[in-house]
Amino acid sequence: MRDGTPRTRAELIQLTGLARSTVGTRVDALLAAGLLAPSGEAASTGGRPPARFAFNPRARVVLGADIGATHSLVALTDLNGTVIAERAEQLDITLGPRLVLDSLVRTGKALLKSAGRTRQDLAGVGIGLPGPVEHSTGKPAAPPIMPGWDGYDVPAHVSAGLGAPVLVDNDVNIMALGEHAAVYPHVEHLVFVKVATGIGAGIISSGRLHRGAKGAAGDLGHVAAPHGGDALCTCGNLGCLEAIASGPAIVKALRTQGIEASDSRGLVDLVRAGDVTAAHAVRQAGRDIGEVLATCVSMLNPEVIVVGGILAQSAESLLAGVREVVYGRSLPLATGELQIVAARTGDHAGVLGAATMVIQHVLSAEQIEVQLASMAG
Amino acid sequence: MRDGTPRTRAELIQLTGLARSTVGTRVDALLAAGLLAPSGEAASTGGRPPARFAFNPRARVVLGADIGATHSLVALTDLNGTVIAERAEQLDITLGPRLVLDSLVRTGKALLKSAGRTRQDLAGVGIGLPGPVEHSTGKPAAPPIMPGWDGYDVPAHVSAGLGAPVLVDNDVNIMALGEHAAVYPHVEHLVFVKVATGIGAGIISSGRLHRGAKGAAGDLGHVAAPHGGDALCTCGNLGCLEAIASGPAIVKALRTQGIEASDSRGLVDLVRAGDVTAAHAVRQAGRDIGEVLATCVSMLNPEVIVVGGILAQSAESLLAGVREVVYGRSLPLATGELQIVAARTGDHAGVLGAATMVIQHVLSAEQIEVQLASMAG
Repeated sequence: MRDGTPRTRAELIQLTGLARSTVGTRVDALLAAGLLAPSGEAASTGGRPPARFAFNPRARVVLGADIGATHSLVALTDLNGTVIAERAEQLDITLGPRLVLDSLVRTGKALLKSAGRTRQDLAGVGIGLPGPVEHSTGKPAAPPIMPGWDGYDVPAHVSAGLGAPVLVDNDVNIMALGEHAAVYPHVEHLVFVKVATGIGAGIISSGRLHRGAKGAAGDLGHVAAPHGGDALCTCGNLGCLEAIASGPAIVKALRTQGIEASDSRGLVDLVRAGDVTAAHAVRQAGRDIGEVLATCVSMLNPEVIVVGGILAQSAESLLAGVREVVYGRSLPLATGELQIVAARTGDHAGVLGAATMVIQHVLSAEQIEVQLASMAG
Repeated sequence: MRDGTPRTRAELIQLTGLARSTVGTRVDALLAAGLLAPSGEAASTGGRPPARFAFNPRARVVLGADIGATHSLVALTDLNGTVIAERAEQLDITLGPRLVLDSLVRTGKALLKSAGRTRQDLAGVGIGLPGPVEHSTGKPAAPPIMPGWDGYDVPAHVSAGLGAPVLVDNDVNIMALGEHAAVYPHVEHLVFVKVATGIGAGIISSGRLHRGAKGAAGDLGHVAAPHGGDALCTCGNLGCLEAIASGPAIVKALRTQGIEASDSRGLVDLVRAGDVTAAHAVRQAGRDIGEVLATCVSMLNPEVIVVGGILAQSAESLLAGVREVVYGRSLPLATGELQIVAARTGDHAGVLGAATMVIQHVLSAEQIEVQLASMAG
């Protein structure tokens, strides 16, 4: 029903091959849950016209939260992922999980209130965090820039405050989900690359997020870069891609050339203002990222590579470097129709993806069964 | 029904929620097609005992063919992938598609005859080829070691000879499918690496083969190796992994050290016989492969890496090199429970995978619908 087309009970029986009694029970339960709503009447074939029902995206709401190193964005959406209300805040991740998540719970309650919705309307909460997360438990796993968060039970904390199921993933996976859902819903294979304070990737394989065995997939930043040399990385290894091509790495390299950028934002501003040295440095970072991405293209053969994160806003410099190397290195079959493009959802990729993650979960067949069973019981 | 448990019509109605008439029509059609067969009687609850039906894996047969550079193995299996009969042949791929595929058709007919089965029993043919294949069309795509095969309509040729649907993929993808189905059916994320005349990988993501946008995924051999230098590769690029770590590359390197191995097989024999220089060279190849695989581990976070192909038979040298680098390089979350193991299906990975590819296709929900519809029409 999620395509939005209104249908009658008879049409559903014919479409699904399910028994009349099964369809009847489910439609009644979904009506009671508000997920279906009456939608006008079908063309009469004589007698009382049969009722039509349609998916009701406003039946429930979802909270999506994108928590970064120093800021957070929280959005309340409907079940189609359309944003109803949102709030951006300065929030330092190093304050630790209790303070940060308490703040998230307060913001969530405020957004619900502002939209005239209650906690009973809340179908779930999706959270993106700037570090590795074991998705199955929602616990951060040794995140480098999040002191105090290792193994913390994020879902328990937030669920206690908001009374709804909570799903957690790393920021890049949710950005990939958001960009894919909003811009490339029909693309089967996509790689989303975030270039900011860190470097990471989210992989869509056959239309679904590829999280890997422990949720650690997409860890592009700590791959050994061909020109990584002995650059010291925050992870303790030498020569990681992140140690030479992230925002802070470029800022540091420019400083040795006498060019001062405050941070990644300052670096982007320099490039946009036409600073040639800064533009060269960003383009070289794009080449370094491209060398690792070329391996990913050979291995994964994606249709689209999306480059996001704040450094993707530096005019075309970053993208040009990535394209130069990837198109030059990979074999024709893999690059013939490959698009390498800048992210289009911008600051909203994360919250859209966090909401998408929850919506896919609560509207999955298994979850619907669980909900119907608990209502029937 | 594919779990093999016999079930009654009433049990199927309850399990699926489908209407009595739907279940009745489908069971009748599957019985007519022979895919279901009566299987004893259910415990009586008074009156005539209801009939039970079970999936009948011998209803149809499947041909799986693994065509290599100089040899081929063709197997006839049932719908569970159990081999009924098989035949190995010396066959030079450079003879071109007509001669090679005519030979395959003859072998297929001979195997059917030897097993007392007819072409009407044949549900499909799966073929693995030693080069890139566009899986959706079954046509080889600029395969480097297969002169005359580029764009050739393999399915049309074989289907004309054997009268059944034909699916084609590259040899490494079918080896990954075969090893996964036979040894790791419950593993969600697996990478199969073949090291022989060429180097390639097959990727299982969320239990399914990840083929990529153009079927070009898993092209490990033509990734730029960190120590690839300016070694000339068959693909025309410089420094590809295959140019330094494949069987022929190692044989060539050993020759400069005065050690003569006839080919990959001879190299493996040398290592097994205790030749230290040959063992060192193979271990170094393992390290070179490990450096590229470390990137794959960071990106894909597989549960299992299987190393197959003839060089995986060189005692533990190759595997030791791979392990040394992958475990040393990747982050703990990705390697904590990662297994790096030698292939266990040996020479049979390819034919098992080719058969698996066809079985998954002909028993997929859509294909069953198509078959039932054509029978009903």
